[in-house]
Amino acid sequence: MSWAAFKKKYEDELLNSIIPFWQKNSIDSEYGGYFTLLDRDGSVFDTTKYIWMQWRIVYQFATLYMTPYRQNEWLKIAEQGYDFLTTHGYSENQNFYFALNQKGNPLIAPYNIYSEAFAVMGAATLYKATSQDKYKKTAELAMQNFIDRLSNPKGKWSKMMPAQPIKHYMDHALITANLGNIMRECFETPKFDHLIEDAMDMVMNRFWNKECHVLMENLNQDFSIDLDSSLGRQICVGSGLEGCVFLLEYAEIKGDQIAIEKLCKIILAELEFGWDSQYGGLFYFQDLLQKPHLELQWDMKLWWVHTEALTASLLAYRLTKQEKFLEWFKRIDAWIWGHFVDRKYGEWFGYLNRRGEPTHYLKGGKWKTFFHIPRSLLNCIVQFNLLEK
Amino acid sequence: MSWAAFKKKYEDELLNSIIPFWQKNSIDSEYGGYFTLLDRDGSVFDTTKYIWMQWRIVYQFATLYMTPYRQNEWLKIAEQGYDFLTTHGYSENQNFYFALNQKGNPLIAPYNIYSEAFAVMGAATLYKATSQDKYKKTAELAMQNFIDRLSNPKGKWSKMMPAQPIKHYMDHALITANLGNIMRECFETPKFDHLIEDAMDMVMNRFWNKECHVLMENLNQDFSIDLDSSLGRQICVGSGLEGCVFLLEYAEIKGDQIAIEKLCKIILAELEFGWDSQYGGLFYFQDLLQKPHLELQWDMKLWWVHTEALTASLLAYRLTKQEKFLEWFKRIDAWIWGHFVDRKYGEWFGYLNRRGEPTHYLKGGKWKTFFHIPRSLLNCIVQFNLLEK
Repeated sequence: MSWAAFKKKYEDELLNSIIPFWQKNSIDSEYGGYFTLLDRDGSVFDTTKYIWMQWRIVYQFATLYMTPYRQNEWLKIAEQGYDFLTTHGYSENQNFYFALNQKGNPLIAPYNIYSEAFAVMGAATLYKATSQDKYKKTAELAMQNFIDRLSNPKGKWSKMMPAQPIKHYMDHALITANLGNIMRECFETPKFDHLIEDAMDMVMNRFWNKECHVLMENLNQDFSIDLDSSLGRQICVGSGLEGCVFLLEYAEIKGDQIAIEKLCKIILAELEFGWDSQYGGLFYFQDLLQKPHLELQWDMKLWWVHTEALTASLLAYRLTKQEKFLEWFKRIDAWIWGHFVDRKYGEWFGYLNRRGEPTHYLKGGKWKTFFHIPRSLLNCIVQFNLLEK
Repeated sequence: MSWAAFKKKYEDELLNSIIPFWQKNSIDSEYGGYFTLLDRDGSVFDTTKYIWMQWRIVYQFATLYMTPYRQNEWLKIAEQGYDFLTTHGYSENQNFYFALNQKGNPLIAPYNIYSEAFAVMGAATLYKATSQDKYKKTAELAMQNFIDRLSNPKGKWSKMMPAQPIKHYMDHALITANLGNIMRECFETPKFDHLIEDAMDMVMNRFWNKECHVLMENLNQDFSIDLDSSLGRQICVGSGLEGCVFLLEYAEIKGDQIAIEKLCKIILAELEFGWDSQYGGLFYFQDLLQKPHLELQWDMKLWWVHTEALTASLLAYRLTKQEKFLEWFKRIDAWIWGHFVDRKYGEWFGYLNRRGEPTHYLKGGKWKTFFHIPRSLLNCIVQFNLLEK
């Protein structure tokens, strides 16, 4: 088949809808950094600056600057965010706060290590784009802080008591693999490859539930599944699919065909497990035994779950050429364009109910920013190019 | 009109559906305390013991024991929960943990002062039911701890930084009024009346938004409304309606006709503001300016919002005899019986989507227990009796 039509559609969405929306509406030219709480038309409905959302924009504009679509303005946008974040974002122990107000004063304490993770991504990518040493230093410090905090991520803000069973959390493995890839690519170092390999082993041999054909989110200390608690039975196929993409990228670099095949098998299982046969789209959270889920939003359809499914299915197709992945890619693509894309104001809705109707019209929120959509569109364009060859 | 048919329906629901469901399924006869994470059929899907949910069951069975429907078994159920909670629930500084495991070992730290609040309610009500001094001491200690913690509720677990604007929170005023009422009733003391009167003043003169005819959830330190943040624009009519019931109970005791009229006017406004004209039922959260709400579940229909609307509208009708409150009561009653009541397994669903379809089949969850439904049904039966006179 010809991929030209897909490529044109994805380029058009990226260059004429997503990027202009954020470029026009998110820059705070008064105080620096970005507005990320954006209503349907791009107007700002809250000026809080959540650090995850800020660093992700730095990462994304710096990444775009290195593509064939390069605009010099994009580097400036990333750099001004970096300046704001490194001027105002550090707590006294050099961790990043969770949120600042518009002016940069801290609102929420640095209780969350994902702030460090996204700082690694933003600063390392700026280093790759510019070769400026200050970005490298920032990325290395954030990476060290991230690793140091992994064993006790919430530190003094943790509410867990000693009787709380120790768990293995898949999200820790996956973000670590993601950062390992970024460090490898931006600094051309294999220094963190062992972290990616550990994550690969955990995902393929521990979190993968052979009997039920799905990735578990949390395991007991002895790697068994805790079937007696909601946390133990929890499944989030969006996070599994996102993680498989990180691991596939590494497996391809290493030419590890066994890992590629296993990860693609897992991607297929995740798509099948998560798909809502009644209304279409992928669920946010599920319970392995279909018991009630404690999260009220479990049955909602979230944009990022679908962008990860889009990338994962296309990548799996390119690597295996199995038709079923192409079918899944087309199914996810059609569902996204039929439900998430806002044809009136541009950009995508983030939150749909189970039927696929928007429950929120926001384009940027506490957890939605300029990140999953452009990352996925870019990644898909790369796959189209490789497939066309 | 005759209230006999309503009374029969509510008694039947309370005595033949709600109470038997919890009496049969929630008692942990092995370790003490209660199972509260109950699936549609009453089976246990997680054994975590959340302290709020535990103390609320103590309160509710002790309350039922003092009604004309009295069963001695209900007192025993309340007492065994009390024993479990006072044996295992205290942290070293005599605050209550947030959650224990089935055996009573602490899982989650005592970061939340509502644990103290529900301990006050449970222990004070057991004192009223038995006159045993130990219950009085427990209630008084919990009340003192609650008051001491009000100025900094989350203590060392707070993630707020100094730049975070100071707010007035309506929920603090309302729970304080609730506890004041309980202390007044169980210990026949006016010692906490000033707290109720403070809450009354705050609700009627500060949280009440004269222009928009609705109660705000959060105000700036100078009592102005923060229109620039999602938190400042937040509305939760369920919490407003629940609070108005607490305040009306006090106003009636005091014979304060002005307060009664104003509170009933607020109840009417809350019902009108919260009602979903498209699908019926009351929203969970709303934004004053209809900007996007950050809570993903804002448009869901929750059982407790509707039980509070039921009680509030009926109480307002009895106190004012205005037909519009009767109409609202009948509308809420019909919506509840049409959507929340589970005719197959008994008890009520807790979580519906905007259309009124269950998204969860659980009967007990992290936030749903034997509390809002029996409290509301009992309260309505009291109103039916008074109206029939």
